[in-house]
Amino acid sequence: MRTSVAIIGAGPAGLLLARLLQRQGIESVVLESRSREHVEHRQRAGILEQGTVDVLRDCGAGERMDREGLVHDGIELRFGGAGHRIDMAALTGGRRVMVYAQTEVVRDLVALRIESGAALLFEAEVSEVRGADTDHPRVHYRHDGAEHVLDADYVVGADGFHGVARKAIPAERVRTYERTYPFAWLGILADVAPSTDELIYASHERGFALHSMRTPQVSRLYLQVPPDTDARDWPDERIWDELDLRFAVDGDWRLERGPITDRSVTPMRSFVAEPLRYGRLLLAGDAAHIVPPTGAKGLNLAVADVTLLAQALTAALGHGDDSQLGSYSDTALRRVWRAEHFSYFMTTLLHSDPASDDFARRLQRSHLDHVVASAAAATSLAENYVGFPLGARL
Amino acid sequence: MRTSVAIIGAGPAGLLLARLLQRQGIESVVLESRSREHVEHRQRAGILEQGTVDVLRDCGAGERMDREGLVHDGIELRFGGAGHRIDMAALTGGRRVMVYAQTEVVRDLVALRIESGAALLFEAEVSEVRGADTDHPRVHYRHDGAEHVLDADYVVGADGFHGVARKAIPAERVRTYERTYPFAWLGILADVAPSTDELIYASHERGFALHSMRTPQVSRLYLQVPPDTDARDWPDERIWDELDLRFAVDGDWRLERGPITDRSVTPMRSFVAEPLRYGRLLLAGDAAHIVPPTGAKGLNLAVADVTLLAQALTAALGHGDDSQLGSYSDTALRRVWRAEHFSYFMTTLLHSDPASDDFARRLQRSHLDHVVASAAAATSLAENYVGFPLGARL
Repeated sequence: MRTSVAIIGAGPAGLLLARLLQRQGIESVVLESRSREHVEHRQRAGILEQGTVDVLRDCGAGERMDREGLVHDGIELRFGGAGHRIDMAALTGGRRVMVYAQTEVVRDLVALRIESGAALLFEAEVSEVRGADTDHPRVHYRHDGAEHVLDADYVVGADGFHGVARKAIPAERVRTYERTYPFAWLGILADVAPSTDELIYASHERGFALHSMRTPQVSRLYLQVPPDTDARDWPDERIWDELDLRFAVDGDWRLERGPITDRSVTPMRSFVAEPLRYGRLLLAGDAAHIVPPTGAKGLNLAVADVTLLAQALTAALGHGDDSQLGSYSDTALRRVWRAEHFSYFMTTLLHSDPASDDFARRLQRSHLDHVVASAAAATSLAENYVGFPLGARL
Repeated sequence: MRTSVAIIGAGPAGLLLARLLQRQGIESVVLESRSREHVEHRQRAGILEQGTVDVLRDCGAGERMDREGLVHDGIELRFGGAGHRIDMAALTGGRRVMVYAQTEVVRDLVALRIESGAALLFEAEVSEVRGADTDHPRVHYRHDGAEHVLDADYVVGADGFHGVARKAIPAERVRTYERTYPFAWLGILADVAPSTDELIYASHERGFALHSMRTPQVSRLYLQVPPDTDARDWPDERIWDELDLRFAVDGDWRLERGPITDRSVTPMRSFVAEPLRYGRLLLAGDAAHIVPPTGAKGLNLAVADVTLLAQALTAALGHGDDSQLGSYSDTALRRVWRAEHFSYFMTTLLHSDPASDDFARRLQRSHLDHVVASAAAATSLAENYVGFPLGARL
């Protein structure tokens, strides 16, 4: 089989890239190792930056998002027994975020892809990318019990942190950066209306907590826990009691409880592999970079990567101009490092680090106080949170 | 001897407090362990915040400062071979800093004090503060070969980090916070016109460097060095060569060299003792808190402390209202922690930490890039640098 762009991975990065290329008349094949059922039910992030919303709308993938998604103008930072609203829309000239789960974005993109009749293979397990540094890269994969080869002009690795695409780059040609954090997130889904209209980021001496939501009927909540936490040690009552303690506020706000339908522990990690290009192999999304979830940047970075990549591949394949492909890695990495920094900033601002001393805890509190007291500090946080337009100086 | 306010220490905090009280008709005695010669020649900080300038002017101590000081509207951040101006005045609605050495402030205040005929005793070594928690605090000191006791309504400890005043507070009533940094500053004075109109803060992989100035004829320069550095290991040529490397920039800027007239190594430390009040003993300036010099906040915090203290003592002694004395510690500490955080921020933003990994170095660079690219991030830095007005939300 032969195509213009072989895309490994049917997460939001791979699916959106396929969609964007298709709109430019460029053929691609998407290979996904997991089943459609699996891909459409993974619980992941749920906050779309303004720029992500715009891209999804522009490529015709925003219809259900605009119907079912929840537009948020602000967030609440809660600490010291009080809540403080960051009015992001007011601070950033009207930029907003959309609460719409990544898993819904994936469903919408899968449906569009299948409807269009273009190639999307589930349970197609890539074993290797060969010849990435030649003009004839090839993707070897197993599908329906047989080995296959996909010839392409370009190969895009959008197969996540554990994917095979990054491994096709010789070790001496790639540089990696990594940081692990001394905590994880215990995340739950609960069948109860959210107790808040906007997300609440709570910094508490017992640990960070986040009140998010999926729909007007489903709450999404997170607790900072030690990294080796087993979710089975957290029965429903314990989770709700701990959430009550961390969200405690002077006044009559209360957290509504409901049946917990999903619970899982997510480790917190920062990771970057550079560069994002090796010959005709290009990396996008989690295949090249991971952020801790505190800044809600993972999905949005993936979308920014493939938006650049779609333009670059269109220029190369459609007009023989490969200058954008040449600058793709540098351009994308500038945004990646901005997001890595912001995610680190939000993580250290809000979490309780077991290794911190009293001095660090007092600096953290002064920083929190300042972010809600100073319009400039709040604006800087808000700008990063809603995301920068493509092409913005970062 | 008896007075209203016994002030221990004739640094800028003690001298300015005496001046402010005198303007309100409140009597004080200033006791300084060192000689006038020594006090007037200590090389210390040299950047006065807008608020510090205002206080000095308002109390009639700004005449020479306004004649000889250099008003600066901005600073330069230099990294990656390029300079980036932060236009502080434009970003903060016209707030500026004044380059005027602390040692000159001290000379001006000493001269005013002596001219007024009010009590200022040099080489008066305080041994102990007694009865701080009673209505009759007493300061024991040695002067002219004899032991003396100074009775006062209030005692102010403005005698620096190593002073005796803080020790009068029982250990169980004081809480301390401390951080040492894995580097120091090698500072020099050189008889050469500054090679820049505004301060240059340079972040370089070899270490931080700062180009400051004292007068249009005298440059003040600093190099980040290891904390155990002996200044004698740094002959003139080595200093200038290292400064050249760290200030290197694309373009034809060059650093002018001249005779080095002073060189010393300053350790970098953060320290806070809480609270700032114990009965009738009040702490101000370095006696209660130390910041690393990167944010130029030490002197300015001392001035803010005694400005609050002068108002509080005037209310208590002049009008029998001690509510401001009651809130002095909390009010002052809010600013102290803001400055501790900003100084830590500037220090980590600009220095090369030998313990950093590659990930941390890339975050640092992304942070630097962002501070000069984002108006909001630059404004937040500028606001902190020029200082917040008294009463501002911090």
